[in-house]
Amino acid sequence: MTVTEIAIAGFGKIARDQHVPSIARSDAFRLAATVSRNARADGIPAFGDIADMIAARPDVTAVALCMPPQARFGYAVAAIEAGLDVLLEKPPGASVAEVKALTRTAKAKGCVLFATWHSRFAAGVSAAKAWLATRRVLSARITWREDVRHWHPGQDWIWEPGGLGVFDPGINALSILTEILPVPVHVTDAELEFPANRATPIAARLTMYGAGDVIVAADFDWRQTGPQTWDIEVETDVGTLRLSKGGAEVEAAGRRLVAGEALQSEYDGLYSRFAHLLARRESEVDVSPLVHVADAFMLARRIETDPFHD
Amino acid sequence: MTVTEIAIAGFGKIARDQHVPSIARSDAFRLAATVSRNARADGIPAFGDIADMIAARPDVTAVALCMPPQARFGYAVAAIEAGLDVLLEKPPGASVAEVKALTRTAKAKGCVLFATWHSRFAAGVSAAKAWLATRRVLSARITWREDVRHWHPGQDWIWEPGGLGVFDPGINALSILTEILPVPVHVTDAELEFPANRATPIAARLTMYGAGDVIVAADFDWRQTGPQTWDIEVETDVGTLRLSKGGAEVEAAGRRLVAGEALQSEYDGLYSRFAHLLARRESEVDVSPLVHVADAFMLARRIETDPFHD
Repeated sequence: MTVTEIAIAGFGKIARDQHVPSIARSDAFRLAATVSRNARADGIPAFGDIADMIAARPDVTAVALCMPPQARFGYAVAAIEAGLDVLLEKPPGASVAEVKALTRTAKAKGCVLFATWHSRFAAGVSAAKAWLATRRVLSARITWREDVRHWHPGQDWIWEPGGLGVFDPGINALSILTEILPVPVHVTDAELEFPANRATPIAARLTMYGAGDVIVAADFDWRQTGPQTWDIEVETDVGTLRLSKGGAEVEAAGRRLVAGEALQSEYDGLYSRFAHLLARRESEVDVSPLVHVADAFMLARRIETDPFHD
Repeated sequence: MTVTEIAIAGFGKIARDQHVPSIARSDAFRLAATVSRNARADGIPAFGDIADMIAARPDVTAVALCMPPQARFGYAVAAIEAGLDVLLEKPPGASVAEVKALTRTAKAKGCVLFATWHSRFAAGVSAAKAWLATRRVLSARITWREDVRHWHPGQDWIWEPGGLGVFDPGINALSILTEILPVPVHVTDAELEFPANRATPIAARLTMYGAGDVIVAADFDWRQTGPQTWDIEVETDVGTLRLSKGGAEVEAAGRRLVAGEALQSEYDGLYSRFAHLLARRESEVDVSPLVHVADAFMLARRIETDPFHD
């Protein structure tokens, strides 16, 4: 098997917690370098700038971009212009149009571009998709409620324009929904709660519509302390499908389809998919979860709520 | 020449001021019916419901949808399901995803779908596009400032979610920009001013970026009384191109390319284009202006400003 020398650019929490261990477990990749202004991994060559890394390491042929979405486009263009294959953490960018621009640029340069949605690799997602494929979907309900202070300590970028606020986790639910539902949906109504001192919402409630009068209700909230909730329920003509724990567990019509596995396996599946795409020289860019978020912002009724302090 | 029997659904100001006269001047269309809950045209059969019109008038093979964007999707689906060709007033819908859904549905049904951008048919636009095609663009500046009270008297839907607020005119500028610029752009920063009592913005300032370090600044404002401004300036390596009066006039490097024509000619061109698409059985759906608006909402820093009263 060819081993791809890969760099990680943007070396924050998600890079350390997920990308490094999954790359270490993969036969297809070797972590060759990191790019970050202020963080590094023990024993791995570290660069402060992606241009320096590209110049110094011609053996590196791929890069995983894990910085906040507001900065992703610049790094992606630099990487693609240098002929590197690119893996984008979610969300793939701060705007829908920039992801389309990247897709065109990657195609023109012959680079593989993989816009990842890690939640689609949760253990229960493919089983849920297969089960729903032959059923008639009536409605769905997403409940995605977590404690922002626990999951995003001190991460100011999530509250800045382009950081998406509660849609940073919520887009994971939308990436699962768009993967498992047999019909496409679109946002018809949205209510967003913005803390008085922040640019992005702390809570969002969406209604979506799909062909065949499918109605989806989504409830995203970042103020839930105690037990955390990442559930999707889909009502069908033959019973209810329940994905829980962010997609790790799934039961349908009262029968368990898949029981929980460790969350880190999402990224093992993700890197396995990247290896598959590289072998075929194919890109995979599904921008639909980000389109739904942009649509929700465009369609939203805004509610101002209590200031948020870390 | 085949004459297409066309209905207009949504019979408000834009239908009366623009669609009816342009259809009357066209050899390719005959206005066969209107669909509206409370408005009608003298001498034209009127229906309160699109299903009734479809049932009563099998000779009608096309429909122009001119209602506010929030209601457009339902009418479009009903029309396409009945096999009608569909012309969508701008914006083509209240969400990006619904327009993509319509595009798929129209293709599956073999219907022509034309998502119109009337400003692209302004007299100076094609000359501007041709002139820019061989120049290197450095930057552009959009100034789109008008008096909402004059242009949208009593139109509450523009202030409701999905009504787009100042992007209702602003998207006209974006439809021209995306037509004439030789490089694609995307929104990188946005500042939106929302009246305290309204769901949509009264002013917006955007920054956009395009390959080759093209920077676009856009200034949309609905509070300009007195002379109205609908200008786009594009700086190039060989001088400045200036589109004014909403695209009706254009000069480049100090030379006038096109002098003003009546605004109504936009819709003559638009219906001529629809006839061309019908003859070829081709759809034309460019969602990019709406993507930029959705991106702007998603990326925006919000500013609350004075309440707006009609």
